[in-house]
Amino acid sequence: MAPIITLLTDFGLEDGYVASLKGVILGICPNVRLIDISHLVQTQDVRSGAFLLSTVYKDFPPGTIHLAIVDPGVGTKRQGLVLRTPDHFLVGPDNGLFSWVCRKEPQWQAHCLENSQYWRSPVSPTFHGRDIFAPVAAHLAAGVAMERLGPRWEPHIAGWTKMVRGDRTLRGEVIHVDHFGNIITNLDEKTVTDFAQAAELQIEIEGVRLSGLTVTYGEQPFGAMMALIGSHGYLEIAANQQHAGKQLGVKTGTPVRLSHSRP
Amino acid sequence: MAPIITLLTDFGLEDGYVASLKGVILGICPNVRLIDISHLVQTQDVRSGAFLLSTVYKDFPPGTIHLAIVDPGVGTKRQGLVLRTPDHFLVGPDNGLFSWVCRKEPQWQAHCLENSQYWRSPVSPTFHGRDIFAPVAAHLAAGVAMERLGPRWEPHIAGWTKMVRGDRTLRGEVIHVDHFGNIITNLDEKTVTDFAQAAELQIEIEGVRLSGLTVTYGEQPFGAMMALIGSHGYLEIAANQQHAGKQLGVKTGTPVRLSHSRP
Amino acid sequence: MAPIITLLTDFGLEDGYVASLKGVILGICPNVRLIDISHLVQTQDVRSGAFLLSTVYKDFPPGTIHLAIVDPGVGTKRQGLVLRTPDHFLVGPDNGLFSWVCRKEPQWQAHCLENSQYWRSPVSPTFHGRDIFAPVAAHLAAGVAMERLGPRWEPHIAGWTKMVRGDRTLRGEVIHVDHFGNIITNLDEKTVTDFAQAAELQIEIEGVRLSGLTVTYGEQPFGAMMALIGSHGYLEIAANQQHAGKQLGVKTGTPVRLSHSRP
Repeated sequence: MAPIITLLTDFGLEDGYVASLKGVILGICPNVRLIDISHLVQTQDVRSGAFLLSTVYKDFPPGTIHLAIVDPGVGTKRQGLVLRTPDHFLVGPDNGLFSWVCRKEPQWQAHCLENSQYWRSPVSPTFHGRDIFAPVAAHLAAGVAMERLGPRWEPHIAGWTKMVRGDRTLRGEVIHVDHFGNIITNLDEKTVTDFAQAAELQIEIEGVRLSGLTVTYGEQPFGAMMALIGSHGYLEIAANQQHAGKQLGVKTGTPVRLSHSRP
Repeated sequence: MAPIITLLTDFGLEDGYVASLKGVILGICPNVRLIDISHLVQTQDVRSGAFLLSTVYKDFPPGTIHLAIVDPGVGTKRQGLVLRTPDHFLVGPDNGLFSWVCRKEPQWQAHCLENSQYWRSPVSPTFHGRDIFAPVAAHLAAGVAMERLGPRWEPHIAGWTKMVRGDRTLRGEVIHVDHFGNIITNLDEKTVTDFAQAAELQIEIEGVRLSGLTVTYGEQPFGAMMALIGSHGYLEIAANQQHAGKQLGVKTGTPVRLSHSRP
Repeated sequence: MAPIITLLTDFGLEDGYVASLKGVILGICPNVRLIDISHLVQTQDVRSGAFLLSTVYKDFPPGTIHLAIVDPGVGTKRQGLVLRTPDHFLVGPDNGLFSWVCRKEPQWQAHCLENSQYWRSPVSPTFHGRDIFAPVAAHLAAGVAMERLGPRWEPHIAGWTKMVRGDRTLRGEVIHVDHFGNIITNLDEKTVTDFAQAAELQIEIEGVRLSGLTVTYGEQPFGAMMALIGSHGYLEIAANQQHAGKQLGVKTGTPVRLSHSRP
């Protein structure tokens, strides 16, 4: 079965940078399957890339190699990384980009990228994606053992989002507003249901109060605001066929507050 | 020969939703070829997605499976559908998305999606794309007979656009303004030439009058407005190297009126 | 090993035009690998497409076929072209789109596209991409010799950008502003280092003066403007984690002036 490499970057779609990665990979591992996750991560927003990666990497078959590059520190002393979770490999800069993955699957193993035998030569100081990360991912796909890429390494894990649980309130924040305008928070389903138990939730965001959770977008009237557990498994605030993010004017980091009616 | 699945959605390119579809498909049918049609269908605009799909699906080899998802009613009672035309399969929500295809090729056969054995489990109420349509398309690609997916079904066929033919006038409307600003109408080549016969056509749109049809964009001076039969086989209004759609301020639904000089 | 066809166009991502190319190609050469370079070349900007193509085509394995279509003269008398460099094939309109490639690798050989046996039939006068260029690229991938596509041909080579070297100054211009806002000039590394020799460079663009070259973006403070040799091998002006292009208000053609401190 042909190996799979996915690509997630902030390179955009108007230049040739993504294609350069793919060309280099195909030169090393001709039978690889290349699948784009997204190249529209907000420029140099490591946090946003880390969240996006964590929402999708497990939908791919075991053995998939995820190449992720959001790299404001390219060419400086930050290390490169290869990470193995029980089912997947991940390759990219060690700047927190794999933080959410590491928290979801704490049984990871990591190596830094030191063995330049698996890099392209010469290495451009401004494009490690093409010259280090892509070749390393391709060599992994071609069967090189991750241990050969460099010594064991402790990845940088960032603590970007805060969740504060009190007795009667649960406070979180917006992680992402998606293409449809759905507002995705950092409050995961288990935390939310543990907090609510049988009681009805009150959700408050940017002065708007919502009561209870719905199941689908379409069960509310056109344009109506609602809260639900989205397909990523996090609490979302949405508006049926409307862009909730723009309506409320929220952005990454906007606080959300839950309370409940339990006595 | 490896099976082909194309993907057409309104999911956008900045999230991981499209990649989730692909990951799920590759888990079920590892040797499938995945080709994007577009993921920039106007959000929840079923009509626009239906038109786009109809302009391109026949350019793919026989046996291609077209996975199309523009699904404002996700999670509600609308059915899922698999449709077979003489050469192709199409999978998606039964909300009119296949209307133009069904009119182009009336020899279709359709089944609704009821057999949850071919779905992902659990099914998220807000992401049937990942959990129902993508797995079903992948199982089709892997050789499952469409009859096993659910019972026969009469698909919803929408009558969005109007064409009114009088003795001396033919009235239609704008279906789509493309990336280049070409204004594509719902008046197909056969209807237009039957109407005009040997006489010269007069085309009127947003107060602008054009006489006769040209063959290529480049035969007119830079910026000049013209009417022609476009590559989709419909009457188009274009401007050489300029964005006709913006110049005329038209949008989907803007009326267009044809007359002729025959006595 | 499966052949590779890359695609570079100004077709955008919201229509079905790119998918039509791919469908047609897969019908002729089912095992081909399709890789997008970009479809967001500025509409009908041949110069911009020519530059983009030249920065990335050599990153692909030998034998790769690059299908490039930016074609304001579609349907007029401009010829179609297949070009062979030592390692690659390129297919597209003969309107200057391969100018930079031809200058980088002067050992090219070219044929025009005259043999309609390798075209789709009928040919739409407004979509040669689908009906001529894509089928020709697919037949090449399937093993047809380029000599069979048409007679030898001298491609149109455009002289878009100017570089003027005086004794104490080197004048060039902006070719491209990338997704990150890096300002890429037409001054290549060899020209710049030959000019500077051991002396420190002074770079002037839109009234801003910079001294010397840096190596990486990250070695400057956040937002600081700098000059460096970018990953394409050209002089770039950049701002650490900021959009230099917007800050300076430059566009394609904006002049850049270098001087040096040598006595």
